[in-house]
Amino acid sequence: MGMTRRAFACMPAAAALTHGLVGVTRYVRFRRGNLTAYGILDGETVRELRGAPFQAAEPTGVSFRLGEVKLLCPCEPRKILAVALNYKSHLGDRKPPAQPELFWKPVSALQNPEDPILIPTDAHNVHYEGELVLVIGRRVRNATAEQAREAVFGVTCGNDVSERDWQKNDIQWWRAKGADTFAPMGPVIASGLDYGRLRLRTRLNGKVVQEQSTADLLFDGPAIVRFASRYVTLEPGDVIFTGTPGTTQAVKPGDVVEVEIEGIGVLRNPVKAG
Amino acid sequence: MGMTRRAFACMPAAAALTHGLVGVTRYVRFRRGNLTAYGILDGETVRELRGAPFQAAEPTGVSFRLGEVKLLCPCEPRKILAVALNYKSHLGDRKPPAQPELFWKPVSALQNPEDPILIPTDAHNVHYEGELVLVIGRRVRNATAEQAREAVFGVTCGNDVSERDWQKNDIQWWRAKGADTFAPMGPVIASGLDYGRLRLRTRLNGKVVQEQSTADLLFDGPAIVRFASRYVTLEPGDVIFTGTPGTTQAVKPGDVVEVEIEGIGVLRNPVKAG
Repeated sequence: MGMTRRAFACMPAAAALTHGLVGVTRYVRFRRGNLTAYGILDGETVRELRGAPFQAAEPTGVSFRLGEVKLLCPCEPRKILAVALNYKSHLGDRKPPAQPELFWKPVSALQNPEDPILIPTDAHNVHYEGELVLVIGRRVRNATAEQAREAVFGVTCGNDVSERDWQKNDIQWWRAKGADTFAPMGPVIASGLDYGRLRLRTRLNGKVVQEQSTADLLFDGPAIVRFASRYVTLEPGDVIFTGTPGTTQAVKPGDVVEVEIEGIGVLRNPVKAG
Repeated sequence: MGMTRRAFACMPAAAALTHGLVGVTRYVRFRRGNLTAYGILDGETVRELRGAPFQAAEPTGVSFRLGEVKLLCPCEPRKILAVALNYKSHLGDRKPPAQPELFWKPVSALQNPEDPILIPTDAHNVHYEGELVLVIGRRVRNATAEQAREAVFGVTCGNDVSERDWQKNDIQWWRAKGADTFAPMGPVIASGLDYGRLRLRTRLNGKVVQEQSTADLLFDGPAIVRFASRYVTLEPGDVIFTGTPGTTQAVKPGDVVEVEIEGIGVLRNPVKAG
C-alpha cells in the first residue's frame, strides 16, 4: 500500500478522501443543483462521467471542485446483500459458519455520506456496524473463483445499521437491518485497490470503537461473490456488505458515526431521531 | 363479486384472465419484438401505455391481440416484501404473530407468467406458495389506515417459492426465498378490485393443493402496508406478497404450478432444473 497505519491515522478526513494511490481510481456519485451524475475524484476535482462507472462511462469534460458538489451514495444498487458473522472477533460464543450466511437489505435503506441515520420512533437499540462493501461491476451467475474476483468492480465503506431488539425478536431481520437510512455507503468507490488487507476503523463521536484488518474476514470478497452467485444473479451496481468486526453499541441522536477504511476514505453520518 | 365459486372453477384460464368486472382495470406488462411496455388488457386486446400505470400513463393508441405478446411480470418493483405466517391454516402449532412478520425477496427472483421456476442444483426441497400480492401505487411512509388503503394500486397473483431446508438451516431466508425465479408474479394487476374476499387456489399439475379466501388473512392488505411503512418508505411499483394458506409440498422438474385468484386470473409456471 505504501501507506503505514500510523500515517493514515494522522491524515485528516479530506486528505484521506482524495489521497491518491497508484492504479486506484476513485468514483463518486454527486448532485449539483439539478444535475445528478457519476464522476471521477481526482485530488479535489470531480470529473463528471456520462453513465455509470461499470458501463465504460466517458468523461463529459465538465469538472467541479469537490466542495461544490453533494456526494451521494456512490452507486445505485438494485440489490444489497450483507454477510453475518464474518469476523472471528464478532462471533462471541458462536461457531464460525461453514459457508457465508447472507441476508438482504432494501434499497430504501441507502443513505448518502454526511446525511443522517434516522432512529425510528419505536426503536431502542440501534447499533453501528462498520463494514467493507463490495461493488459488483459485471453480471455474474454461478461464478468461478476467477469470475468472482473479476466481478468486484471496487470497494467502499458501509454502515450496516442494526436494531438489536428487532434482530432478536422478529422472525426475520427485515426492519432490524432494513429501516430507512440503515445502509449508509460511501464516500467513494475505490477501483483497482487491493482490498484484502485494509485497516477498517469505526469511530463513535471521534473515539475508535471498531478496528480490524479486512484480512481477518472469514470469507473474503471473491468467496462471498462466488457463493452468492450460485443462487442469485448479481448485476453491475449491486453491493455486498461483508460483515462487521468486534462488538458494537447503541447510538443516540446527536452522535456521529465514522467508518474509515484505508485507501477508501471516511463515511461519516450524524444520528438523528426519525 | 357476482361470480360464484363454481362458475369460476369451470372457467378456462384464458377466460379467467380476460374476464371483465365492472370498475376493474387489468394492467399487464408485455414484450413484443423489441418493445417492452405496460398495457391495459381489455378482453383479448392489449392497449399499449406510455409509462407505468401508477404514473397516470396515457394510451399510445397502439393495440395488440393478447396472443401476439409475451406477458411479463406485471410491474418492476424496487422492493419485494413478503409476510410470513399470515393465514391461520398455515400456522400449524405456531402462535398467530402479534404484528406482521415480514421478510425481503430480491428483484432478481422475479419471474414472468409461463416462464420456469428453476430449481437450484443443490436444492432438494423447493415448495410452491400461492399468494395474493399487493402492488403499491403511491410513495408512502408512516401511512395512516386510509393512506395505506389508498397506497394499494392493485393486486396480482404470486408464488413465494421457498426452499424449506435452507429456510430451516440458514440464519436468514436470503436464498430460501430469494434464489433466481423464486418470485413469479402475474398475469395482470387488477386495479379497482375489492381484494378482501377473493378465492385463492393453487394447483399442482392440475390438482388443487391450496384453497382459501383472502378474507382469512390475519393481517389484511392495508394493515400490512401501514405496519411496513412505519419503517420502510414504499414506492410505486413495490410489491408485498401477503402470505400463503394451508400446507405446501415439494415440486420437481416437469411439474406445473398455477396460482389462481378470483377476479385476477391464473399465474402458471412450469418447474425446471436450474
